[in-house]
Amino acid sequence: MTLARIALHGGAGVIDRQHLGPEREARYRGELQRIAAAAWARLETGASALDVVESAVRDLENCPLFNAGHGAVLNHDGVVEQDAAIMDGRQRAAGAVAAALRPRNPIALARRILDDGQHVMLVGPNADRFAESCGIPRVDNTWFITPDRQAQLEMARAEGRVSLDHDQHAGPAPVTASGHSPDDKRGTVGAVARDAHGHLAAATSTGGMTNKRPGRVGDSPLIGAGTWADDATVCVSATGHGEYFIRCVVGHDIHARIAYGGQDLRSACGAVLDRVAAMGGDGGLIAIAANGEVLLPFNSAGMYRAWVAADGVLRVAIYGDDD
Amino acid sequence: MTLARIALHGGAGVIDRQHLGPEREARYRGELQRIAAAAWARLETGASALDVVESAVRDLENCPLFNAGHGAVLNHDGVVEQDAAIMDGRQRAAGAVAAALRPRNPIALARRILDDGQHVMLVGPNADRFAESCGIPRVDNTWFITPDRQAQLEMARAEGRVSLDHDQHAGPAPVTASGHSPDDKRGTVGAVARDAHGHLAAATSTGGMTNKRPGRVGDSPLIGAGTWADDATVCVSATGHGEYFIRCVVGHDIHARIAYGGQDLRSACGAVLDRVAAMGGDGGLIAIAANGEVLLPFNSAGMYRAWVAADGVLRVAIYGDDD
Repeated sequence: MTLARIALHGGAGVIDRQHLGPEREARYRGELQRIAAAAWARLETGASALDVVESAVRDLENCPLFNAGHGAVLNHDGVVEQDAAIMDGRQRAAGAVAAALRPRNPIALARRILDDGQHVMLVGPNADRFAESCGIPRVDNTWFITPDRQAQLEMARAEGRVSLDHDQHAGPAPVTASGHSPDDKRGTVGAVARDAHGHLAAATSTGGMTNKRPGRVGDSPLIGAGTWADDATVCVSATGHGEYFIRCVVGHDIHARIAYGGQDLRSACGAVLDRVAAMGGDGGLIAIAANGEVLLPFNSAGMYRAWVAADGVLRVAIYGDDD
Repeated sequence: MTLARIALHGGAGVIDRQHLGPEREARYRGELQRIAAAAWARLETGASALDVVESAVRDLENCPLFNAGHGAVLNHDGVVEQDAAIMDGRQRAAGAVAAALRPRNPIALARRILDDGQHVMLVGPNADRFAESCGIPRVDNTWFITPDRQAQLEMARAEGRVSLDHDQHAGPAPVTASGHSPDDKRGTVGAVARDAHGHLAAATSTGGMTNKRPGRVGDSPLIGAGTWADDATVCVSATGHGEYFIRCVVGHDIHARIAYGGQDLRSACGAVLDRVAAMGGDGGLIAIAANGEVLLPFNSAGMYRAWVAADGVLRVAIYGDDD
């Protein structure tokens, strides 16, 4: 029996069949299937968990359906500010970047910071400078912007909302020419993996919230909040209303409930999402425990997700009732 | 018996009597005494823990002896980039700022972000823009720079070191005209308090590391790492080699050991500092537990600190042997 496990998410939010529609649903399922299958194949041929979560998140960043990399949401200024983090469960080594404007794949910059080892986190224009000095491929900020995201920002601005990707209003949502609902609000992508050696890793990347205040950083790039990995316990990547996930230190809270409270993965994840909900937030997470248990809980209507657990079967799901 | 408690730190590092010298030691003790007495007086007259940690950190920022605000250390570019966070133990509300260049008192900006409530963390030039829009007093970045810090950077650059404030080399350290050792390397200031209503709060502020890579963010502004407060358990402000404190999620780890592991404050703080040390890091922290216990542990040679515990006596200490 293989030790390998993989789980991916493409964001949580108010995602339901009516608003998503069959055509877009099929596109999301197809992309999740493709990216998870590639990640699984790499794990099966001996790649490290760290390398696999990086490449899976890079694939999710490159897919315009998800709120990270190309197709990320826009801040109030109409600029894409990107946050990403990656963590290696072996030594708890980590790399994180926030409010970066230029790296084509923010997760590649986070990985470079991890490998460099001097610092854990770089932010703002200076993170872009470091990326440049390392030869991380860069693009003009406008490269990230899709017509759908532009429409989404214009709607959010008009309504004075700061909105999370994938959330949809009550009532039919207008749909842009490309079939993307402009008021999708909640995003973030992430991957967690256990490799053939039993090592854990986690990676997360996001454009944050549509119409967010420029410079705003959510939980994704914060080690212990949106991203966490420790071989002894669990690897976690979260998605949701970041401010609540920060205040609950979600990833490390799951770790601590397992390490100090003797809780199992399900109880630990349930308790922290209950705490997030009690504060007024929602979202979800993907987690793989040291014992190989894979869990993808969320308290929003849906979460784009794909995973391979102990049975080796690749599953893709979106709604709350299609696991 | 009053519920009120206060503890402050002005950074941890290789601080010993020989290098500090009696005159500088007296200045540090005098400033810690003055700032702690003012904070204690506010607590005694009914101020909230949140207001008191903010004003205490503001006082520490304004004192050029410490690595925060005026007198903060310089990054590799010769620029002061400031990080700060504040957290209210009542609802775990929090505000944080990283790599800000202009606010005269970074902790005032962190407090404004907490009060605003929309986001938890703002970084980089956009944090400065938000500060400006809120009327937070700002200064030109050069206002923060003291001749001592300039000399410190030049030495670190010449030696190719990235250095923490207050660390001193083996052997006599050169001293600048103002009596400040230019190779003081480790800083950060912080305050934790319990008020008359039993509420907890924590605040931390820092210029980070001398000669740090521009855009580098340490543990200070990360909720759960360098700054943490929850009325149910503990408030914490940390100081030390930030990268290790991030990877150990120091503040939240102490919280979790108490909340889920049933550990007492001393065991919890000891365990997390042991973990930091095992990874290769050092530093210290100040903490007040919900039960009123006050602890100021460190695994470096010294930590500038002041506190009032259950007996109502204000104490000031610097070295490992003068508690």
